[in-house]
Amino acid sequence: MSKLKVGILGATGAVGQRFVQLLADHPWFEIVALAASEQSAGRKYGAAVHWVLERDVPAAVREQEIIRATPEQLRGCCSLLFSALPADQARFLEPELAAAGFAVFSNASAYRMEEDVPLLIPEVNPEHAALIRMQQAKRHWPGFIVTNPNCSTTHLAGVLKPLHDAFHLRKVLVVTMQAASGAGYPGVSFMDLLDNVVPYIPGEEQKLESEPRKLLGQFAGDHIVPADFIISAHANRVAVRDGHTEVVSLEFQHRPAVAEVVDILRTFRGLPQRLQLPTAPPRPIIVLAENDRPQPLRDRMRGRGMANIVGRVRECPLFHIKLVLLGHNTIRGAAGGSILNAELLARQGYFPDFTPDSDYTGAAS
Amino acid sequence: MSKLKVGILGATGAVGQRFVQLLADHPWFEIVALAASEQSAGRKYGAAVHWVLERDVPAAVREQEIIRATPEQLRGCCSLLFSALPADQARFLEPELAAAGFAVFSNASAYRMEEDVPLLIPEVNPEHAALIRMQQAKRHWPGFIVTNPNCSTTHLAGVLKPLHDAFHLRKVLVVTMQAASGAGYPGVSFMDLLDNVVPYIPGEEQKLESEPRKLLGQFAGDHIVPADFIISAHANRVAVRDGHTEVVSLEFQHRPAVAEVVDILRTFRGLPQRLQLPTAPPRPIIVLAENDRPQPLRDRMRGRGMANIVGRVRECPLFHIKLVLLGHNTIRGAAGGSILNAELLARQGYFPDFTPDSDYTGAAS
Amino acid sequence: MSKLKVGILGATGAVGQRFVQLLADHPWFEIVALAASEQSAGRKYGAAVHWVLERDVPAAVREQEIIRATPEQLRGCCSLLFSALPADQARFLEPELAAAGFAVFSNASAYRMEEDVPLLIPEVNPEHAALIRMQQAKRHWPGFIVTNPNCSTTHLAGVLKPLHDAFHLRKVLVVTMQAASGAGYPGVSFMDLLDNVVPYIPGEEQKLESEPRKLLGQFAGDHIVPADFIISAHANRVAVRDGHTEVVSLEFQHRPAVAEVVDILRTFRGLPQRLQLPTAPPRPIIVLAENDRPQPLRDRMRGRGMANIVGRVRECPLFHIKLVLLGHNTIRGAAGGSILNAELLARQGYFPDFTPDSDYTGAAS
Amino acid sequence: MSKLKVGILGATGAVGQRFVQLLADHPWFEIVALAASEQSAGRKYGAAVHWVLERDVPAAVREQEIIRATPEQLRGCCSLLFSALPADQARFLEPELAAAGFAVFSNASAYRMEEDVPLLIPEVNPEHAALIRMQQAKRHWPGFIVTNPNCSTTHLAGVLKPLHDAFHLRKVLVVTMQAASGAGYPGVSFMDLLDNVVPYIPGEEQKLESEPRKLLGQFAGDHIVPADFIISAHANRVAVRDGHTEVVSLEFQHRPAVAEVVDILRTFRGLPQRLQLPTAPPRPIIVLAENDRPQPLRDRMRGRGMANIVGRVRECPLFHIKLVLLGHNTIRGAAGGSILNAELLARQGYFPDFTPDSDYTGAAS
Repeated sequence: MSKLKVGILGATGAVGQRFVQLLADHPWFEIVALAASEQSAGRKYGAAVHWVLERDVPAAVREQEIIRATPEQLRGCCSLLFSALPADQARFLEPELAAAGFAVFSNASAYRMEEDVPLLIPEVNPEHAALIRMQQAKRHWPGFIVTNPNCSTTHLAGVLKPLHDAFHLRKVLVVTMQAASGAGYPGVSFMDLLDNVVPYIPGEEQKLESEPRKLLGQFAGDHIVPADFIISAHANRVAVRDGHTEVVSLEFQHRPAVAEVVDILRTFRGLPQRLQLPTAPPRPIIVLAENDRPQPLRDRMRGRGMANIVGRVRECPLFHIKLVLLGHNTIRGAAGGSILNAELLARQGYFPDFTPDSDYTGAAS
Repeated sequence: MSKLKVGILGATGAVGQRFVQLLADHPWFEIVALAASEQSAGRKYGAAVHWVLERDVPAAVREQEIIRATPEQLRGCCSLLFSALPADQARFLEPELAAAGFAVFSNASAYRMEEDVPLLIPEVNPEHAALIRMQQAKRHWPGFIVTNPNCSTTHLAGVLKPLHDAFHLRKVLVVTMQAASGAGYPGVSFMDLLDNVVPYIPGEEQKLESEPRKLLGQFAGDHIVPADFIISAHANRVAVRDGHTEVVSLEFQHRPAVAEVVDILRTFRGLPQRLQLPTAPPRPIIVLAENDRPQPLRDRMRGRGMANIVGRVRECPLFHIKLVLLGHNTIRGAAGGSILNAELLARQGYFPDFTPDSDYTGAAS
Repeated sequence: MSKLKVGILGATGAVGQRFVQLLADHPWFEIVALAASEQSAGRKYGAAVHWVLERDVPAAVREQEIIRATPEQLRGCCSLLFSALPADQARFLEPELAAAGFAVFSNASAYRMEEDVPLLIPEVNPEHAALIRMQQAKRHWPGFIVTNPNCSTTHLAGVLKPLHDAFHLRKVLVVTMQAASGAGYPGVSFMDLLDNVVPYIPGEEQKLESEPRKLLGQFAGDHIVPADFIISAHANRVAVRDGHTEVVSLEFQHRPAVAEVVDILRTFRGLPQRLQLPTAPPRPIIVLAENDRPQPLRDRMRGRGMANIVGRVRECPLFHIKLVLLGHNTIRGAAGGSILNAELLARQGYFPDFTPDSDYTGAAS
Repeated sequence: MSKLKVGILGATGAVGQRFVQLLADHPWFEIVALAASEQSAGRKYGAAVHWVLERDVPAAVREQEIIRATPEQLRGCCSLLFSALPADQARFLEPELAAAGFAVFSNASAYRMEEDVPLLIPEVNPEHAALIRMQQAKRHWPGFIVTNPNCSTTHLAGVLKPLHDAFHLRKVLVVTMQAASGAGYPGVSFMDLLDNVVPYIPGEEQKLESEPRKLLGQFAGDHIVPADFIISAHANRVAVRDGHTEVVSLEFQHRPAVAEVVDILRTFRGLPQRLQLPTAPPRPIIVLAENDRPQPLRDRMRGRGMANIVGRVRECPLFHIKLVLLGHNTIRGAAGGSILNAELLARQGYFPDFTPDSDYTGAAS
């Protein structure tokens, strides 16, 4: 099997670095293009990047030359692009690239809530990928845009999914304590976060209150009918490097027992698990029994950063259930989530020239 | 006016140090006894204490000798005691001291929820002080015990008070992000909190779900009828030195306008403000307009650590109102709150030998 | 006495904010001009500044309009300017302002090592102020530039001064552990400093190895003969907000006793102390006896941030003496140092229209 | 090859946990005994330990029962013990165990400087292991004690070794910035280290000034002649989890060129590398070229925590060379160092019943 050639847009930023790190040894994908701003273009990746992740710049890309993120530069070298662009650049560039035939897997918020753009988490709503054909027809694009949600939404929706299926959600109150890496690099000043909490993240509460309803909504032929529960969100920045912690109170159609909730979460497996996608964690949700967990420091790397971790499932005096959840915001909540989307579509035949090897013989969705 | 002589129990601990710091130049009270554990007894305070607060050990107490916290040691030197004892010691020692005639102002949780013990915040429920006479009659104590609430409860109840009066609370969902100093000294290990959130504080959620209902309850002759709203609490420890941040969603009997809520909070003044008690902040609640405030680093010292700070008052999609509040947990939430209780009772004549000077000429309570 | 009108260049940055804070209630100086970049010009100071210091923007300047830092804008409103400009802007603007008649007290590194520009710490080398007349003659400037040293140099030179006078220094090995605020705002990313040490600060070691020799050098009529000791510096950034800690090993002409060194440091008083300048700390050097002090958290605000704090004076197996020193880098090490320079010159008659009130009747230098 | 059965003393503490983690999948050693204090004895390791390391308690030991650290309890189950005991317990227990026939590899400081006890780093002084036979003869012990140095000494000596061999050291000035984990768990209070530097670690400077001279000393038949260079140390605690950073100024018999120093460090390989011991890093010293490295956050895990990392090699104005070095204090500086010692002795035949498999066919020392 020869690998599928991929490019990374915004490759020198914090999320771009995660893409590089996670794709360096990927069994299906091979990085052939690293695109960044004009200042970096022409330089070697290893020299241009201010690497902020654990371990080193992967050897395979250190000497690769950075190009500019234009269709002209990218054409011919690859057809699949991972985008770590900021929303304002994504807004203009991603449609241009989709129109030029690229499959764009975007982390940006620019197109997440568009009616014909899938907002995709493979464990949550793989059937929403069908919007792609609609998008291509409607916009006359040979390529397409698929988005993954905001980091804090990804973890929340990943945990709500099996509970909504089992008990039908009515109300969700979520309070986030988000890591600094969510703001990119350099992002938050040390002066603003040492010995501090900042009880505000621009735009975050709106995303948390809307994106999960699209994610858990129903595919209705040519659009998504949003789920009908209500969400209230409080978003906070705390002095943590990686890992968003979220405390949640939930109300369902009927009150479930705590043990039922735990059981549903523990035993949940999604399509990526059944398809054994390379980046899929064996268990998408890990439930911890200790009363002071999950903690970002100690639990963010479970499932190689791709699992959502749950703890303290208990009764809520106001709603039905309360719990704590945690996810790695730049792996599952950003680059890793995007890569899992690409793996899903690759397995489902969206890239005709590429057939992943697989022992898997079951019916894939 | 000669000052009222006071003692501090647990004077070398973190809260004990706050008592020492806040009482060092107090206009009404004078520290004459510093009581601590057997290991420290007999040593000079300045030599025995591992001072963890800003600025130095006050000069006035540096050479004072530490005594043991027994009625025998304390008798004769003072009649008012501030207790920073841990709950397990307070459980045995505080009744003994009350029985021996001392007025004990306790930070411990041991007696807060006893029917005949006032759980007191002067701005919130000064009329509950009347339980003291009942307590003395029932227990045949010449002295008494008055408690102040758990730190996170103090800030919450201080903000809920005027809103409950105005709009009648139904539901309170509170999520705390609490500072390390709340766990005392040495308290939390650096290894447990650097780059981390701990989503659990033993006993804290139960306190937050019960104490505010007693505080906002009605004095009914010989007991308190708890307020009838329901509270759900999630308590978290974050990497902050001082200052508990709490995000709150509130439901009332009827939905108030955001502007009404802001106005009620801004203009609220309690009895300590009318009485101009020395430790009372001019404004018990300060409302900030910036969208990313309050922050513990920047706002905890407002009102010299005695104000509760509110920000981000806005509509809640699930309940009626959501907001952020902040208080200094070892000043307003502990030692300062206790001192304000003592000032209130001093002004109200509970210490017959002591009459505070005052320009105040209005009707006190 | 009417106050001397002053302006602040770079008023919205981190050091500019310190100037604003320290000058807000100054007995001699009054802020009449706040100059900043084009983007801020025309806006109210309180609205344009992202305030990063403890407490609020002083009320007196909140409504003051920001102007651009040009001679035209500043002319007429004041003659004394405090400059918190970055070096590259200072290089062009400060001479222009001096040529236009302004007295410029600069924090920038641009002109510190120029032969005719005083690098001034009032306790260390007040006699170097005489270079001003030379500078004015040589450059035909009606105004002048006076600089204060790099923050880490200021604390080091402040401690070395009395020891060099007493024992004649030969060798200085200094290792700094510097606070984040030294890099300004936003300055250091949270991602770079949480759980980390960065063993490099651009340009810092060169400054530490050269500036102290000019500061402790001898005024020789028209230039300074640098002191003849040798310095080796290692500069590090640590996870601290404010306060530079420096560990030092010293060799002198002859080995002094530890007790002599402590005594010299403790009893040292400089010209600002004799003149009782408003910003001068009563004791320029404070020696602590505890074996684990000074610490930035607990000692940086001694002398209202204007003292240098020394601890752990002991024998060095390689040189003669080793010790730890600490200073507040944005107060004594930046804005406060500059203000003290201006106070010295004001007292010495450099501003003819202004005579500070004083009880002081001694001979001022 | 069947594995050598080993026990861990002090298995629940911070260093004990590192032993457990590093030995869980060890190719030569198998944990059969976990010894701890009386309170833990009898409990399952997974339940008794408060695990503070990354990842989980290894599955293999989770259900293992903790025993007390006495010869009676340990006899029969293993003959090799790794000791993570505090010095005061080590002082009494380790000789008792050596007398009872155990080979004790100790992290404690109790016996490091005894004349007949090897203070061992396999890359630095493997020939010192010969002291064991002397120790056994002199003390009539069937077992023995081998120690590894204090963490900060380990990293320093590991870097000095090849330089001393090449250029003969005269003077070493070292300033450490040490991580919190060096103080064990709970160790340093969050209240003492957030936003702070503590310029003192009890006993550390004495160890740094003496242990390297024994390590680099010459084996003289029945004792070690200490190396004749002089060391001056300043030890500081900084807000870092793991990884001690040390800045060093060095003087040699003759001034070497910077390039020579870099070359010597880069190409150095020791006996563990030649023997390919399982825990030996391929390169014991890694030299980084970036001017702001090594940093504990980003470089401590190089060589799986067993390498010493060097950067900023440059000329020193006072001595000859200055540089920055970094090591992982609980891996190379504690548990990993001890395990490497045991591997060396195992390879050299000190455990007659155990012969490690090996492709290595060269002459082992």
